[in-house]
Amino acid sequence: MKATKVPEATIRRLSTYTRYLKELEEQGETVVSSAQLAKACGVNPAQVRKDLAYFGEFGIRGVGYYVKDLYEDLRRILGLNREWRLAIIGIGNLGTALLNFKDFLKENYKIVAAFDIKPEVVVGRVAEKAGKPAEILHPDRLKEVAKERKIDIAIITTPPSEAQKVADQVVEANIRGILNFTPAQLKVPRGFIVKNVYFTTILDNLVYLLQSRRR
Amino acid sequence: MKATKVPEATIRRLSTYTRYLKELEEQGETVVSSAQLAKACGVNPAQVRKDLAYFGEFGIRGVGYYVKDLYEDLRRILGLNREWRLAIIGIGNLGTALLNFKDFLKENYKIVAAFDIKPEVVVGRVAEKAGKPAEILHPDRLKEVAKERKIDIAIITTPPSEAQKVADQVVEANIRGILNFTPAQLKVPRGFIVKNVYFTTILDNLVYLLQSRRR
Repeated sequence: MKATKVPEATIRRLSTYTRYLKELEEQGETVVSSAQLAKACGVNPAQVRKDLAYFGEFGIRGVGYYVKDLYEDLRRILGLNREWRLAIIGIGNLGTALLNFKDFLKENYKIVAAFDIKPEVVVGRVAEKAGKPAEILHPDRLKEVAKERKIDIAIITTPPSEAQKVADQVVEANIRGILNFTPAQLKVPRGFIVKNVYFTTILDNLVYLLQSRRR
Repeated sequence: MKATKVPEATIRRLSTYTRYLKELEEQGETVVSSAQLAKACGVNPAQVRKDLAYFGEFGIRGVGYYVKDLYEDLRRILGLNREWRLAIIGIGNLGTALLNFKDFLKENYKIVAAFDIKPEVVVGRVAEKAGKPAEILHPDRLKEVAKERKIDIAIITTPPSEAQKVADQVVEANIRGILNFTPAQLKVPRGFIVKNVYFTTILDNLVYLLQSRRR
């Protein structure tokens, strides 16, 4: 498997195809063409075929793809055929949003813990926003809880100044994957993976481009 | 102004520096060193100096930067010294989350409209989640409302299959900036700018890397 050579954009699109295939399967569709798949995912059909070609041969010429088979294959390729257990660290506005609106996560993702350095402060705000109480733990318990609850991935939504310290604790707890929502550049040892989501700053970037064009 | 040569990562960091400077100013601090600024933003001091050097000379050797001046300068550079008016199009889970948790937006961003092709369906769900009613409009009214409410930026959180159609409507309404949360690859004419936030698929990407390393 030439896993390392697959472009990130391809993996991103496979993830999108998977979402659409799931919809089709739920609607009872059995076959889908690359044109239909492409259209639903906002790309062109050649791109769909190229993306899939990284992983072998799929589909039947003149027919298209079997929805159920392709769905299962892609889930297996992406590692989405098992449960991934998430922890959110830093329960400010964004952390609270993620905690409350987990609906946008695929069903194989499960938020199993939430951490904040001031659990007693945020617990009230989370309950108020969610309309129900939530358990918020101190990050000092990360290692113990990671083991108990089998946490695979840590989502870091702390202030940027705290992010590296939290990442160190995540590594210490042997949680292999980090989704970093802060703009800090995190350093982790070999064998750990960080992915960055530059969420709020992308909007600033857009604004910068909009206003600099106007000059 | 060599605006086009500034790396995106620099703009992203300037945006982070701005957030921190605001905090300092609120705390009554008058001076900050590049080391302090760097630490709070999770980067190294040389990076701070390099980022600022794109835009001129700031700060005083041996002293650091004046908090208020640097804050104002960066706000002006980034275009954050004015109000930017946003519309959210597609009020599913993610759209609802953005609508309810606008707290994580800087104060110069204002959500002035929300659109969905099924306003009568989503309005109830939004009210339930937010604990208060919200106005949801049909995208057919985009052009008229964009003009009335002076919308600068459209945030697209529709299914990917709808995203290009919505982008066309946004262009038709002469809204110059698009923040695209869908994985669709949007085409817009010259003079319009699209920025992508691959929010939910980045998690899938991380999982793919985690599981492909385990093989």
